[in-house]
Amino acid sequence: MRVLSTICFDADDTLWQNERYFRLTEERFLELLADHAEPDHLAERLLDAERRNIERYGYGIKGFTLSMIETALQVTENRVPGEVIAELLAAGKELLTHPVDLLPGAEETVRGLAGRFTLVLITKGDLIDQERKLAGSGLGELFDGVEIVSEKTRAVYRDIFSGRGIAPDTAMMVGNSMKSDVLPVLDAGGWGVHVPSRIAWALEAAEAPLGHPRFREIGALSELPDLIATVTRNI
Amino acid sequence: MRVLSTICFDADDTLWQNERYFRLTEERFLELLADHAEPDHLAERLLDAERRNIERYGYGIKGFTLSMIETALQVTENRVPGEVIAELLAAGKELLTHPVDLLPGAEETVRGLAGRFTLVLITKGDLIDQERKLAGSGLGELFDGVEIVSEKTRAVYRDIFSGRGIAPDTAMMVGNSMKSDVLPVLDAGGWGVHVPSRIAWALEAAEAPLGHPRFREIGALSELPDLIATVTRNI
Repeated sequence: MRVLSTICFDADDTLWQNERYFRLTEERFLELLADHAEPDHLAERLLDAERRNIERYGYGIKGFTLSMIETALQVTENRVPGEVIAELLAAGKELLTHPVDLLPGAEETVRGLAGRFTLVLITKGDLIDQERKLAGSGLGELFDGVEIVSEKTRAVYRDIFSGRGIAPDTAMMVGNSMKSDVLPVLDAGGWGVHVPSRIAWALEAAEAPLGHPRFREIGALSELPDLIATVTRNI
Repeated sequence: MRVLSTICFDADDTLWQNERYFRLTEERFLELLADHAEPDHLAERLLDAERRNIERYGYGIKGFTLSMIETALQVTENRVPGEVIAELLAAGKELLTHPVDLLPGAEETVRGLAGRFTLVLITKGDLIDQERKLAGSGLGELFDGVEIVSEKTRAVYRDIFSGRGIAPDTAMMVGNSMKSDVLPVLDAGGWGVHVPSRIAWALEAAEAPLGHPRFREIGALSELPDLIATVTRNI
């Protein structure tokens, strides 16, 4: 009989707030550009730039800042004042110092599972920023491993599992992104648990794999221990 | 008797060209700003910005691009034209696609050591960009492990060694940066081998630890196999 050995957690918007700080920065972007460009579709233009640049910039705040600057130049045909670009740079730097607000149940859940399971944090974004947030979260010591990756694909999960000698069907990944935390883990042979976040980034949207035998959804992290107990009983 | 078990390599300017592409981009920056700011100290202002921003941005091209934009705004008191900012963004993106030019002896040396030693690549910079370069180098499969880190400190090397079950005094790190590739590895109990690069970044400069028993310097990577043989005989 197989049992669960390893619980992996996503970080941003699973353990702590993230997207809301991006949204506040985006609002600042829209305000700053309001006097210089038509407001229509400004947010969509920014999202287009992010989507276009992901392949080169990867995830994280530095790429987001560069995409804000690029969009400001494009929508104003390069006429955006230097002061506005300076404000965008400052907004990006501020985003890099946002406080680490743990989500409800995050600390209790992780603390309760530590020692009983191998815990691995798997997150994407800028290295230094993710390290800062993990340090600020106070949860760092509860994890047996931390993987900061450039993309969350089936191959990446497989490498993480095999590198740690973990059989995929004994591993569970818990996160708010169906696209990054659930679907590729199911494909890699593991369990995928979706914990929807209140605010989600459009680029992370994907259909739920309803009916998949290793897919589960919970409303909050505090439901995770019961889910693990149920899954373990039925494996 | 202890023998060497593990050879770790730095990547940028140790295995492949890197700094020369930054320099070309910096020259482009100086040209672009020439009509808009006094040329005096422009390069120093850029270096100041990089130094100031390292803590937040970390290493890599995205942070460098943001520092170029910040410097352009500062030296022109925000009067730099939008076209110039757009050019700096484009220069940063171009830097993210620069070809991977292996340095002389890199491929033969790594290939000759693979299988005989555990080989680990240890590099800092933007995750996605370092992965792109490793893939483009064709050397990826020769390494037993790849560590992309935000900073190369004694603690980081210790974590890498202990995470892989490597006794520090059986590990050798080879790289072009005295500050990042040699000194902290010596502090961590390993061997540090300096291979000076033709062009070096000012922020990586440090004094050679002359007389340290585990410090060595070679003129080119092709000298590494002989050095390893000598060290192994004398341990």
